[in-house]
Amino acid sequence: MNAMSELAGSLVIPIAAEYLSSIGGGRGIILGGITGVPPTRVVILGAGTVAEYAARAAIGLGAEVRIFDNEIYKLRRIKHKLGNQAFTSTIDTSTLSSSLLTADVVVGALRAEKSKARCVVTEEMVATMKSGSVIIDVSIDQGGCIETSETTTHDLPTFTKYDVVHYCVPNIASRAARTATTALSNILTPVLLKIADSGGIDDTIFHYSWFSKGIYAYKSCTTNLQIAKKFNLPFKDLSLLSATRF
Amino acid sequence: MNAMSELAGSLVIPIAAEYLSSIGGGRGIILGGITGVPPTRVVILGAGTVAEYAARAAIGLGAEVRIFDNEIYKLRRIKHKLGNQAFTSTIDTSTLSSSLLTADVVVGALRAEKSKARCVVTEEMVATMKSGSVIIDVSIDQGGCIETSETTTHDLPTFTKYDVVHYCVPNIASRAARTATTALSNILTPVLLKIADSGGIDDTIFHYSWFSKGIYAYKSCTTNLQIAKKFNLPFKDLSLLSATRF
Amino acid sequence: MNAMSELAGSLVIPIAAEYLSSIGGGRGIILGGITGVPPTRVVILGAGTVAEYAARAAIGLGAEVRIFDNEIYKLRRIKHKLGNQAFTSTIDTSTLSSSLLTADVVVGALRAEKSKARCVVTEEMVATMKSGSVIIDVSIDQGGCIETSETTTHDLPTFTKYDVVHYCVPNIASRAARTATTALSNILTPVLLKIADSGGIDDTIFHYSWFSKGIYAYKSCTTNLQIAKKFNLPFKDLSLLSATRF
Amino acid sequence: MNAMSELAGSLVIPIAAEYLSSIGGGRGIILGGITGVPPTRVVILGAGTVAEYAARAAIGLGAEVRIFDNEIYKLRRIKHKLGNQAFTSTIDTSTLSSSLLTADVVVGALRAEKSKARCVVTEEMVATMKSGSVIIDVSIDQGGCIETSETTTHDLPTFTKYDVVHYCVPNIASRAARTATTALSNILTPVLLKIADSGGIDDTIFHYSWFSKGIYAYKSCTTNLQIAKKFNLPFKDLSLLSATRF
Amino acid sequence: MNAMSELAGSLVIPIAAEYLSSIGGGRGIILGGITGVPPTRVVILGAGTVAEYAARAAIGLGAEVRIFDNEIYKLRRIKHKLGNQAFTSTIDTSTLSSSLLTADVVVGALRAEKSKARCVVTEEMVATMKSGSVIIDVSIDQGGCIETSETTTHDLPTFTKYDVVHYCVPNIASRAARTATTALSNILTPVLLKIADSGGIDDTIFHYSWFSKGIYAYKSCTTNLQIAKKFNLPFKDLSLLSATRF
Amino acid sequence: MNAMSELAGSLVIPIAAEYLSSIGGGRGIILGGITGVPPTRVVILGAGTVAEYAARAAIGLGAEVRIFDNEIYKLRRIKHKLGNQAFTSTIDTSTLSSSLLTADVVVGALRAEKSKARCVVTEEMVATMKSGSVIIDVSIDQGGCIETSETTTHDLPTFTKYDVVHYCVPNIASRAARTATTALSNILTPVLLKIADSGGIDDTIFHYSWFSKGIYAYKSCTTNLQIAKKFNLPFKDLSLLSATRF
Repeated sequence: MNAMSELAGSLVIPIAAEYLSSIGGGRGIILGGITGVPPTRVVILGAGTVAEYAARAAIGLGAEVRIFDNEIYKLRRIKHKLGNQAFTSTIDTSTLSSSLLTADVVVGALRAEKSKARCVVTEEMVATMKSGSVIIDVSIDQGGCIETSETTTHDLPTFTKYDVVHYCVPNIASRAARTATTALSNILTPVLLKIADSGGIDDTIFHYSWFSKGIYAYKSCTTNLQIAKKFNLPFKDLSLLSATRF
Repeated sequence: MNAMSELAGSLVIPIAAEYLSSIGGGRGIILGGITGVPPTRVVILGAGTVAEYAARAAIGLGAEVRIFDNEIYKLRRIKHKLGNQAFTSTIDTSTLSSSLLTADVVVGALRAEKSKARCVVTEEMVATMKSGSVIIDVSIDQGGCIETSETTTHDLPTFTKYDVVHYCVPNIASRAARTATTALSNILTPVLLKIADSGGIDDTIFHYSWFSKGIYAYKSCTTNLQIAKKFNLPFKDLSLLSATRF
Repeated sequence: MNAMSELAGSLVIPIAAEYLSSIGGGRGIILGGITGVPPTRVVILGAGTVAEYAARAAIGLGAEVRIFDNEIYKLRRIKHKLGNQAFTSTIDTSTLSSSLLTADVVVGALRAEKSKARCVVTEEMVATMKSGSVIIDVSIDQGGCIETSETTTHDLPTFTKYDVVHYCVPNIASRAARTATTALSNILTPVLLKIADSGGIDDTIFHYSWFSKGIYAYKSCTTNLQIAKKFNLPFKDLSLLSATRF
Repeated sequence: MNAMSELAGSLVIPIAAEYLSSIGGGRGIILGGITGVPPTRVVILGAGTVAEYAARAAIGLGAEVRIFDNEIYKLRRIKHKLGNQAFTSTIDTSTLSSSLLTADVVVGALRAEKSKARCVVTEEMVATMKSGSVIIDVSIDQGGCIETSETTTHDLPTFTKYDVVHYCVPNIASRAARTATTALSNILTPVLLKIADSGGIDDTIFHYSWFSKGIYAYKSCTTNLQIAKKFNLPFKDLSLLSATRF
Repeated sequence: MNAMSELAGSLVIPIAAEYLSSIGGGRGIILGGITGVPPTRVVILGAGTVAEYAARAAIGLGAEVRIFDNEIYKLRRIKHKLGNQAFTSTIDTSTLSSSLLTADVVVGALRAEKSKARCVVTEEMVATMKSGSVIIDVSIDQGGCIETSETTTHDLPTFTKYDVVHYCVPNIASRAARTATTALSNILTPVLLKIADSGGIDDTIFHYSWFSKGIYAYKSCTTNLQIAKKFNLPFKDLSLLSATRF
Repeated sequence: MNAMSELAGSLVIPIAAEYLSSIGGGRGIILGGITGVPPTRVVILGAGTVAEYAARAAIGLGAEVRIFDNEIYKLRRIKHKLGNQAFTSTIDTSTLSSSLLTADVVVGALRAEKSKARCVVTEEMVATMKSGSVIIDVSIDQGGCIETSETTTHDLPTFTKYDVVHYCVPNIASRAARTATTALSNILTPVLLKIADSGGIDDTIFHYSWFSKGIYAYKSCTTNLQIAKKFNLPFKDLSLLSATRF
């Protein structure tokens, strides 16, 4: 969902700042740039909403940002949104590898294709990264786009591999629970008002096909095929239930 | 020193982000702004270099920033540096109080006058702040500019008073030890080269009055009056040592 | 029409400036911000084209702008267009009420839904506004989105209620008659050239359905149902006229 | 004073907008730019603080701005403040004349030299301006920098010559009386606090030479030579009064 | 193709700079603006991608840019992309003519309509242009949008008419052969990977209609009608070849 | 002189663009950045006015810029002028060397110290640069700041060493003779007017010491010591001439 992507993207950069600091056990550098000191280098994999908000925050702090994605139209859009100076590149191995060599922070924000994230950063590439650099793999809930990523939790959010700090907590947005709540309410409230206007939940389900797509269970039946399969539950087609209603 | 102020200002905002997060025990909000959710409100006391870099970072993340200082020329300069939209105000109690009521983050960055920081935020004002909001008092090494501030350490960096998280570690720049080192080297290297050019340390001390001002001890004597007084050490005037040299 | 919305949005802010001035009988403040004086606060209801141009002008003058709308995608678009720092919020009563308490200018620019403007600012809210503040309800031609709005004219453009100046002239764009003319010509000229290319008005009407939608009267017959009803005129269906033509 | 210049500069552009409008009897155009309509052209004479704030407001509204001054260092400063795209030119008659031919608004903001404003726009040049264009001569209190300028009042703020509206009210800042008051308080309050700290007004006068320069009358004597001459009053030298005090 | 348009637009302005210089035989002026010297004036015909990148580069160098197009929605888009201050106008003869009188550089970037570029600048208009000014007609490969344009080559890239330098090399992008290659690879590589995934070229041709549109020749037959006509070659319809395959 | 530095800085980047192009015999790349292709890398040595205008132009075209200088206050100023994202670094050999490895363009713009330019790029470093990259040494008139630089002329402006194109024409500003003339007139005209006001050249020379500093010859005598020495001419002290005048 777009709002959760905006949120995750906004949260990523301060997290990276924490793990780059001497206190966080990192390289002991700032995330940003002060006069006369080369700015922190941030590599962002992906050019969607998470990437956009992470890039904006990193640029706002004064870091140097490089954005990699294979979809030219996404690169064009993010370049337009961030301003003409944004560094964008397709994911060609040579440019990416040399960027990783000097990166202080890598943000994984590639969306999965066919529900499988593309693993574009190999273990070999991670092994070449600078000691104390930080990887935050936001796409970990879809399998991650960095080979060394493994799911972590808010209690133990990081592990270190090849001297690179990995932060791979799946639901980053929960760090800002209150903001997330407001953002979700902004989206859900109009739906609830619509239900009230439409004469109750049943009528809404059976009149609005866009709505029925979001129904996972109805009258003790699982109505979402993927969920039913995954947890081995009996499945009922909602449109059949709808048909028998009259 | 300007470089350390740039550094401290850059570090402040990611620290605030950490303590605002649910993980950091804060309000569970982001430091910034996503669509449809009112942005985080940051009040900055002071309009010098720390304030400038903190403001820039906060604005970069999408927060709403208000800057208070009593020196009009400093406000004019920071307004010019941050762009015309920056909210600047002299420290009048009514505007400041109402800004604190809604603030999520307060950054204390007022320089001391006559080596005593001005305490512009009273305990009463802190008591009216929102539960879970964050105070970072960068001026704590000069006594602080918020009445409830008390020095903390990197080991135990915060305490809570009136439900407001206080972060009052004196030497914030040490969080980014490596960046600080580079920044200091940028300033010290030219001095060292100058010493080499001038025929050694002694000649430099006695030929350059700007240099002698930075000498705290010389040939087992304390040559800085304040230090001598504070630690009750015998004091010798460097210019007398210089006179006796010939 | 988009061009008229750009125009109305551009005109709104200088009008507000006039009524805020001591000469205009207002609070005696500028619309904008000078160093050390908190900037003027502008609340904009709506996030469409009028809102965008009004916001841009207010920001350009140095004011602090808050934009309220219930459609997240519109908020996202305007936030993108105005830059990341724009304050956007869904219309939740608590945030809106507290913003109105401190507002100097309120611009009503919510489009009507189902041809009825949503009245989001109640009379009670207006009663809490600051004395001498200014309301400009651009949506007045669709019924207005502020409860106290009542249509005014260019001859007597304002009235005062609860000590708040209300400017509710329906056709604001007519203030800039010449600019409006150029803007409309830019849109109409291609249509006229098309008609010439298509072999005259009759052929255009009967060949292009998008064109026939704009025909209100044809050969002494009223061909627009709403107009016919409103003024109690006999109505003829243009497509029937078209059919009988051959 | 700088604060009053910021204020006057901010006020000028909305005033121009009013007189350009059809309602204000002007050309019936907006001050700014909408898509597909060439933007309003604003010529600003001078490159000081008034000019800077007027230019910023005009640019903010979308107008095309041209700034003329003879002092290169002022042009360099304003170009830097407004961004690289600002059009700056020294006052050469040919460039200025051709700019006036197409100008919609002319703002006179040249400071007087040797207490006499430079009259850089001649009556002949005004005669070539477009019908319905607007001149606002902010420098009128120093004699004006446009030959056709004559002092007007807030009651009757404009006159028309060569079909060009002239607005020449000397104290434009009084349009925003409340903002002006706050701005002046920001400057005066520190002075008043200083007086209190220094043991009363007498001690302050006689101890601070910068302060005594601002004393126009002391113990029934006029102590400012210019004022005394102008109103034919007996003059006493404040330093003599000071000498006799002991 | 969008990428080639970005490229051509980026190249145009440095080329213009070369021919404006004294070395290039031009007016001996910079392309841009330095303090106190009126900036170079660039007129851009068209508001598509070439125009956008040319405008951005010209603005980046400090020039004054005017953009003309007849499609309001394109003007709106480019105005949004370049920032609010961009001068946009529909192509009305009077505004265009007066802009050409003072132009230093004219960039022709109007796309052809119905595969015929619109010639909006007549020979008479070119005759009024300043001596030593530069025309770069990027649309020359579609016939050009300036009446005096005639195709030139990289070997002899310019000719002079009415004392105006004309640069009309059709394939400007070839100036940056390496950048063009990378840009094209970015687009072609995903297609090649797709072919590999789809089981070879034949399967791809016959399964993906979007792909077959790009096939000019197949098994010794010309399959593109325009090419066949132009070079008088026998034509075979690819869909028939496809049908006979089974 | 500042104006000539602005001019030289503005000219440098289009020259680099020419020599990077395939036509100019360069790498065949653009100076700038298009979507999906890593932007051109420009290294600028120095942080004065030439550097500022070159950086601005390069950023405007979409290139990635790195600025090196040893004076922190100059880096601070240029960072402020170009925006917070500018990459600034002191000249430390390791950062500079690795930046040169990937640079496409190097601009030498370090001012000489004690009338001798600092040579900060050694021949070894140039040897590591990419084939087809471009060096423009603007400081060549003070000896150059790149070891391989040798003065060239407008007729034969470049030579190639280590496969790197060197452009080392001393008086770059003469490329834009007309702009330079206007810029110089802007500075000289006030001086000429001053002379007229002061009663002729003789009185000006003898009354204004700032003016006499610019006199190289007076009444057939060489009055500038350096010139006299260099060309072995008899020298007369202007102040003695002045003394004998009465």
